[in-house]
Amino acid sequence: MAPSEIIDKMYNNDPFSQWLGIERVEEGPGFCLLRLKVRAEMLNGFSIAHGGITYSLADSALAFASNAHGRKCVSVETSISHVQPVMEGDVLTTHVEEVSLSGRIGIYHVTVKNQHDVDVAIFKGSVYRRSEKW
Amino acid sequence: MAPSEIIDKMYNNDPFSQWLGIERVEEGPGFCLLRLKVRAEMLNGFSIAHGGITYSLADSALAFASNAHGRKCVSVETSISHVQPVMEGDVLTTHVEEVSLSGRIGIYHVTVKNQHDVDVAIFKGSVYRRSEKW
Amino acid sequence: MAPSEIIDKMYNNDPFSQWLGIERVEEGPGFCLLRLKVRAEMLNGFSIAHGGITYSLADSALAFASNAHGRKCVSVETSISHVQPVMEGDVLTTHVEEVSLSGRIGIYHVTVKNQHDVDVAIFKGSVYRRSEKW
Amino acid sequence: MAPSEIIDKMYNNDPFSQWLGIERVEEGPGFCLLRLKVRAEMLNGFSIAHGGITYSLADSALAFASNAHGRKCVSVETSISHVQPVMEGDVLTTHVEEVSLSGRIGIYHVTVKNQHDVDVAIFKGSVYRRSEKW
Repeated sequence: MAPSEIIDKMYNNDPFSQWLGIERVEEGPGFCLLRLKVRAEMLNGFSIAHGGITYSLADSALAFASNAHGRKCVSVETSISHVQPVMEGDVLTTHVEEVSLSGRIGIYHVTVKNQHDVDVAIFKGSVYRRSEKW
Repeated sequence: MAPSEIIDKMYNNDPFSQWLGIERVEEGPGFCLLRLKVRAEMLNGFSIAHGGITYSLADSALAFASNAHGRKCVSVETSISHVQPVMEGDVLTTHVEEVSLSGRIGIYHVTVKNQHDVDVAIFKGSVYRRSEKW
Repeated sequence: MAPSEIIDKMYNNDPFSQWLGIERVEEGPGFCLLRLKVRAEMLNGFSIAHGGITYSLADSALAFASNAHGRKCVSVETSISHVQPVMEGDVLTTHVEEVSLSGRIGIYHVTVKNQHDVDVAIFKGSVYRRSEKW
Repeated sequence: MAPSEIIDKMYNNDPFSQWLGIERVEEGPGFCLLRLKVRAEMLNGFSIAHGGITYSLADSALAFASNAHGRKCVSVETSISHVQPVMEGDVLTTHVEEVSLSGRIGIYHVTVKNQHDVDVAIFKGSVYRRSEKW
């Protein structure tokens, strides 16, 4: 199955991604550029985006990038540092780097940037690559 | 300001927590038991909850527990392992342990459990404690 | 192979553990209490133990505890927070909690304490459990 | 104080760095290239370097790079993934990227490579930047 077909399968009929309004801009084995526009209902009590919004976007990018190699992947551990506040109307994008890929484990850095090309979050994820193919 | 007043300030007028349907069950300095019922719109394409839902819940518990000491806290790094799938209708709760608290840094373990008392996610968060008081 | 036989195989002829002076106090599937006395040559330029000493001790405890189930394990990701300074002459011990164990992945919390029962480091490790048996 | 003077202060009279045989190749505010040759006494029972050796090297690079800005820094959390085995005789180097620097927090990626330019470990560290200057 081609990378985009795999991501179609993951993304279509995905209610939370629909709610988030995630758009797929560019994708392939080991990378994935997603875009999300921050809406009022994604804010916390301080009028900045809840950390869970940025995490959700980066975690989706991790899932798409790692599965696009053709084997089913599940995340083992993910970490995120929120380094700049995210405001209503900001347009966030994911920049994925596959830093290591072995038979069973893949490691990815995902930087989330805003529309001014400023890093807002630094995400790292490790996935376990199952034998099962898409 | 009392712990619950601080958390009121953080929680009230928080659109994303309202959307998630987070309920506050028990809270105080260094701990916070939150509850969330998983709805259909929180699922991903595999009919299990998106990892971002569990992360958002745990991250909120971290924010409430650490700020409830009376000083404003910002997270430095958070990590999460999703260890069991979460289904529609599941009722998730947060179990916070303050594992270290020094002048500037607090470290917390948050275990997210489902209604069968099964761990679904293992979360760890470090916060920076500002001098500024609530 | 019994847990202690497995750990014998890992520990014996292990030059770095010998150098560290790691002693095995208690062990079994999923847990491992190790002890290490901090010597002058383990200090950094500030006369406290280098972070690598505490990490090495906790990482050994992770390896022993996870392999003692009988399947060969390799670490996927480890993290550590150094929360109290460690001095020459301090006696450190490892307290391992197996927080999750599935077919392929195990997750462990290791708390490193000093002789006053004070936590000096908070360590978390994820391992991949190979099919191969000891 | 100049970056190299700060690192002199940290590195000189540091018994564990001497034992490791860490050499300083290049350094400055926010970066630090260190080198270490793996010796027999650094191996574990499998004849590969103990994870603590690579961690110690990366953690030293983090300390030097972050303190070289002139303010005293302490690590909040560090994580490492060991992605390739390290053998006796391997020559390891640290490649530091300062991914975020704010008033109080710095975040760094440190890649540890061997003499064949192959990544052997992926390290991430967050530091708290004290007000106190060197």
